[in-house]
Amino acid sequence: MLELRLVQGDLLKKVLESIKDLVNDANFECSGAGFSLQALDSSHVALVSLLLRSEGFEHYRCDRSVTMGVNLANMAKILRCAGPNDIMTIKADDQPDSVTLMFENPSQDKISDFEMKLINIDSEQLGIPESEFEAIVRMPSAEFSRICKDLGGIGDTVVITVSKEGIKFTARGDIGTANLVYMQNSSVDKPEDATTIEMNEPVSLTFALRYLNSFTKATPLSGQVIISMSSELPMVVEYKIAEMGYLRFYLAPKIDEEEENKGYLETKPQVKSKTESARKTNVIKKATETEPMVEDKPQDQA
Amino acid sequence: MLELRLVQGDLLKKVLESIKDLVNDANFECSGAGFSLQALDSSHVALVSLLLRSEGFEHYRCDRSVTMGVNLANMAKILRCAGPNDIMTIKADDQPDSVTLMFENPSQDKISDFEMKLINIDSEQLGIPESEFEAIVRMPSAEFSRICKDLGGIGDTVVITVSKEGIKFTARGDIGTANLVYMQNSSVDKPEDATTIEMNEPVSLTFALRYLNSFTKATPLSGQVIISMSSELPMVVEYKIAEMGYLRFYLAPKIDEEEENKGYLETKPQVKSKTESARKTNVIKKATETEPMVEDKPQDQA
Amino acid sequence: MLELRLVQGDLLKKVLESIKDLVNDANFECSGAGFSLQALDSSHVALVSLLLRSEGFEHYRCDRSVTMGVNLANMAKILRCAGPNDIMTIKADDQPDSVTLMFENPSQDKISDFEMKLINIDSEQLGIPESEFEAIVRMPSAEFSRICKDLGGIGDTVVITVSKEGIKFTARGDIGTANLVYMQNSSVDKPEDATTIEMNEPVSLTFALRYLNSFTKATPLSGQVIISMSSELPMVVEYKIAEMGYLRFYLAPKIDEEEENKGYLETKPQVKSKTESARKTNVIKKATETEPMVEDKPQDQA
Repeated sequence: MLELRLVQGDLLKKVLESIKDLVNDANFECSGAGFSLQALDSSHVALVSLLLRSEGFEHYRCDRSVTMGVNLANMAKILRCAGPNDIMTIKADDQPDSVTLMFENPSQDKISDFEMKLINIDSEQLGIPESEFEAIVRMPSAEFSRICKDLGGIGDTVVITVSKEGIKFTARGDIGTANLVYMQNSSVDKPEDATTIEMNEPVSLTFALRYLNSFTKATPLSGQVIISMSSELPMVVEYKIAEMGYLRFYLAPKIDEEEENKGYLETKPQVKSKTESARKTNVIKKATETEPMVEDKPQDQA
Repeated sequence: MLELRLVQGDLLKKVLESIKDLVNDANFECSGAGFSLQALDSSHVALVSLLLRSEGFEHYRCDRSVTMGVNLANMAKILRCAGPNDIMTIKADDQPDSVTLMFENPSQDKISDFEMKLINIDSEQLGIPESEFEAIVRMPSAEFSRICKDLGGIGDTVVITVSKEGIKFTARGDIGTANLVYMQNSSVDKPEDATTIEMNEPVSLTFALRYLNSFTKATPLSGQVIISMSSELPMVVEYKIAEMGYLRFYLAPKIDEEEENKGYLETKPQVKSKTESARKTNVIKKATETEPMVEDKPQDQA
Repeated sequence: MLELRLVQGDLLKKVLESIKDLVNDANFECSGAGFSLQALDSSHVALVSLLLRSEGFEHYRCDRSVTMGVNLANMAKILRCAGPNDIMTIKADDQPDSVTLMFENPSQDKISDFEMKLINIDSEQLGIPESEFEAIVRMPSAEFSRICKDLGGIGDTVVITVSKEGIKFTARGDIGTANLVYMQNSSVDKPEDATTIEMNEPVSLTFALRYLNSFTKATPLSGQVIISMSSELPMVVEYKIAEMGYLRFYLAPKIDEEEENKGYLETKPQVKSKTESARKTNVIKKATETEPMVEDKPQDQA
């Protein structure tokens, strides 16, 4: 039997709103350690990884590990019925074909329960190697969201360049070229307004803006975003979830630019023009060849 | 001659915004008693009834009863030109082919007048019997609006079940089943946040959510909604208008479920699956056979 | 060399948002006197004129006059990347094929620069005669915007009538007739809420609402709008920009109504019915025959 009680029920609501457009169907895994999900997006370019640790729940009972296949758009519809301060309880059998989601408002005069049908999803658990990153940037999540949105109006890809001084975002399109530079800055009123950089060596990589613009739907989850980059690895865009876990997005860099890590003050953008650069996108398995993360069957890339 | 002066002119604006999508054309009736409207929606399933009593007007002159046929969408366009604090005056002849709507802002430096053409509408006055209801629920109107919207994402119909403890809304669809329960609760800070139940016997009826979702456009009119239900009668969804009247919506329950009034704690929903349940909708005359409210000609049910 | 530093960088952002839908491509002219733009809208009915005087810039260096052809929609996209409090710097060569727009946030930890490609635009500088107007009305810009939007729901054209007492806006359509009257009123809390009228003689002219509704996109630039009208001239709708300049829109009145200046209390509207009145629109050159403002080649009127 499975019974999880989460006081901040709207955390899961925000998670679903963040990922439902990127991933259609996915398995939630519930074990003694926590409640988690890993899924590739439908074009197999980006990977989503969610963890809510058991300690973060008010009550956590999970007699044996359970896999729950869910259509994320449907689950988002149900979670939208929860109020912003509702307490959520998740209940299921050991081998469930449905799961019950229950919401109680703080004054206990409103109780909702939803019986959601589960679906069968073929998927292998993906092994995500814990990696050392050359550069880790923490910055306000709303600022990162705005950058990706603004640059999406200018080009298809962004070159992200990290140096000791700051992080630079460069996009090029038919209109012209944009460079946005954020300096390291920790002397701010609120800690979440800080921009901080941990770096072993400078790194400069190119990413498709349409995926980044999908990831930033997680902005309501956390005031800060953590961007981890290495020249040989997919980048990680991470949003901490309260004190109990995280939502991480993995995205492989565009291949052409992989070998061209340029210094931070290099002003020539390394992206192709808007039309050319849209062609080649590295699927995530290419970037982590030693440890295959996806099945081999080629997939339609939307 | 007709001349009505309404200090809270935006009340009529809110009324029009509430009903203009449900009803295309309708007759406003102005008599010594008040300013009223009754109309069936275009599919002849729901009935709208508005009353603004003459006492609620600052000035009310109506020499003889006047019928004014109006295209509600056009009237809503005109009323949108009124400011939120404008005083409204309605003027017409005894046998008018147009009506003048005048708005003055509180500082009297802005005056708008609109001459609106009237149209001829064939309609019989509907006799709505005053009924005793088995259950009357008062609850926050915003909450009722949210319920109907949320459940609309899950199914086509809702089973509303009233018992002494509370009111339960159940919807079922391909996704699963939702139960929303509101307990009776009058210990609240603001009276309009209360949920109260007057009940002779438990009642459980099924309604089409698309009509309820149309009715809840009246939510800005009042902080509370009054839901009156009896197993043999159309439900009434009522919004009080200041101290001067009401806007009521009548909706017949779905026939299949009429005989199956189930207890409040009964958890099996009585609705058919999403696809099946959409087929049969009881027109309002069926539910009130003794007193026909609509003409006999069958109408296309949208 | 050209280098202009504007502390309130978002002024230019607001200008671009105001005019980008009216004009596709236009030349910015930069001289010792200031930064300016003049352009006809694509149907050659309305004229836009922008001036930002050099004194309004924190730093203004313009070695020689420079013309910069710009696609306004693209420039608006770039300016949208500027924060609301950013300082903007514009840089270009003496004969530029691109211009650099730079934004710095107040805390100087975020710097963006954009290299925007310039385009070649054939255009003659239009001579706009300084005119004496029969009536000049100042009123809250938000109020004027609302009037144009509301009347746009009723008819295609508006008759604007100015008398000593106030300004009247009349529209007529299939629904009926609307008259909005604003009295002269300077006893207000905030100066920008005043409605004031300077008038030599009453004037009443008819204008196409679709152009007015385009002009009012400039509402965020200024709390007041200045409407200048004479029976023989295009009207001017002007928004002051801080202490440094203005954005002006010129629109010729509809020809039919030109000779019919009616008094203010005249209630019969002078507009044709909705369908008839849409036909004839006076291009701006017609109204200022003595001084041609546009090339002679006929243009497609959108």
